[in-house]
Amino acid sequence: MVTMTKNYHRSDVTVIGSGSWATAIVKILSPNCDSICWYINDRRLIQHIRKHGNNPDFLSSVSFDTDKLILTDDINRAVASSPVIIMVTPSQYLKSALDKLAYPMDSKIVCTAIKGIVPDQNVVVGEYIHNYYMVPYNNIVVLTGPSHAEEVAMEKLTYLTLASLEKGSANRLASLIKNDYIRTIISDDIFGTEYAAVMKNIYAIGAGICVGLGYGDNFLAVMLSNSAREMHSFIDIVHPTHRDINSSAYLGDLLVTGYSQFSRNRVLGTMIGKGYSVKSAMLEMTQVAEGFSAARGIHDIVVEKNINIPIASAIYRILHEGASPSQEINNLAKVLI
Amino acid sequence: MVTMTKNYHRSDVTVIGSGSWATAIVKILSPNCDSICWYINDRRLIQHIRKHGNNPDFLSSVSFDTDKLILTDDINRAVASSPVIIMVTPSQYLKSALDKLAYPMDSKIVCTAIKGIVPDQNVVVGEYIHNYYMVPYNNIVVLTGPSHAEEVAMEKLTYLTLASLEKGSANRLASLIKNDYIRTIISDDIFGTEYAAVMKNIYAIGAGICVGLGYGDNFLAVMLSNSAREMHSFIDIVHPTHRDINSSAYLGDLLVTGYSQFSRNRVLGTMIGKGYSVKSAMLEMTQVAEGFSAARGIHDIVVEKNINIPIASAIYRILHEGASPSQEINNLAKVLI
Repeated sequence: MVTMTKNYHRSDVTVIGSGSWATAIVKILSPNCDSICWYINDRRLIQHIRKHGNNPDFLSSVSFDTDKLILTDDINRAVASSPVIIMVTPSQYLKSALDKLAYPMDSKIVCTAIKGIVPDQNVVVGEYIHNYYMVPYNNIVVLTGPSHAEEVAMEKLTYLTLASLEKGSANRLASLIKNDYIRTIISDDIFGTEYAAVMKNIYAIGAGICVGLGYGDNFLAVMLSNSAREMHSFIDIVHPTHRDINSSAYLGDLLVTGYSQFSRNRVLGTMIGKGYSVKSAMLEMTQVAEGFSAARGIHDIVVEKNINIPIASAIYRILHEGASPSQEINNLAKVLI
Repeated sequence: MVTMTKNYHRSDVTVIGSGSWATAIVKILSPNCDSICWYINDRRLIQHIRKHGNNPDFLSSVSFDTDKLILTDDINRAVASSPVIIMVTPSQYLKSALDKLAYPMDSKIVCTAIKGIVPDQNVVVGEYIHNYYMVPYNNIVVLTGPSHAEEVAMEKLTYLTLASLEKGSANRLASLIKNDYIRTIISDDIFGTEYAAVMKNIYAIGAGICVGLGYGDNFLAVMLSNSAREMHSFIDIVHPTHRDINSSAYLGDLLVTGYSQFSRNRVLGTMIGKGYSVKSAMLEMTQVAEGFSAARGIHDIVVEKNINIPIASAIYRILHEGASPSQEINNLAKVLI
């Protein structure tokens, strides 16, 4: 058990999570940091990384300088270790990851790279961290942007947006992740960027469903341009502020997800469009498709605030109410412009 | 020689052009028309279509009911034959196609499905038809939207936008082309939709150049979302009006072109990115890549009106001034958001 009051700060930054995006983020951070604390809730995986310097489950070709890594399955030690905490679990595992956390986070810079709604809370992760861990909004940073982890592993040029109400917090994260292949963009739209990151996964499932049903590229372009319109109107209602929805954190993120055959959300949708039941399609997935639970979370907000977003609502009914994919897309096709 | 004063109107509509999009449009029109006059500047091709009922050069799997087709290489007869004329040549061949036209067009509904700038005029086709053939703007309709001809041939669901200052003209075209797989959207933005259709080809060349240079999907999403932003700002300067740039006629058209490996503009860009000279890449193309001349036309407007559109300007310099693709994209990468 760690001493709760002592600030270790033995590391520059702590990463919480061990999926593909967490692994990519540790890779990004490595050249800029002397020490990274990496929380992984799996002792076997920790042993493997210590011994072999790679994550066998995701992006296994990426080699880590293990001298820089402090690997731990102790969430309190992980949070205590660094002034900056980056959360990168799937949203549905966030609560369990933080379950044993007793160490205070309120003086930390907390960055969320999670793209989902916290289950049963119907809030994005930034709001949840603020509400439940008393982290001031000025200390919260949202990391988003079009970023397949696989391309980060290959060091392909990638633009990440860091959004915070406090520019200094966003800049602090930027200084940790900027490198030859990572460009950073600073934004003050912490709510809009995070909602966009959540919603694009729903629309990617929608794109996949259309592909699975046999619709072509002409229709897919109509679906995704209308998805961009719908995302814009939803975000403007939930958090009104001036934003250019066609910059990379919003439209760019939607495009990379909706057009990639490697997006797990699009793959899930394609299986459903081809006739798999939602349940069996979910069982076939080896990675979490965030859009599945995001559809429910966004739907709850839609009901609460009486918002009209027909595309996301159709995807919700297909995923969670057993609605027919072909019937729903057919109805949807009547309202697109 | 036709009699210049007599209105034949033996057909419902005349289509001018014989490329893939012209062929697709004749297919779309067929079920809704008793007679279609099809102007083709190639007697051999006319003979083939008469005999075999298909266009061997493009979409050869599409069979036409030849009883409905009046095929002619006489432009005056073609224009005289119908109350509605649809122009579907590549923009660079438009002037030569109309070269011998003496028959007046001013009482016709003229629809342009051409997506390019008229060479040496620096205007879109609608403006050109208005200026040089005295066709009132109320009679001009722009047909646009995300529409690979190949998918129309396969009867994949496709959304076409018909833009006119006069709703009745747009509706008249809509009634000719609506069918099971073609949905129509009516718009009053004849200038904006046509400029978008022109510009998307430039941005598709840009997307191809990035792919050819080895950039990945993460960067491509940044390029195309920034292209959408740039297209929006250009069109708003050239023709200010209220428009939703993320509806299918603008963003949808950009996406279907920028993301398709079958877009000839993207293919041209990919070859250039891979190291082909512009000249040899152009020689390899079997179809016209409209973006090549569009880049010059838009550049002339940019200079004339002092507009700042860095992406289209970089593509212009690569295509027409011998600039280095890698250097230009590298510079561009610094200004994207």
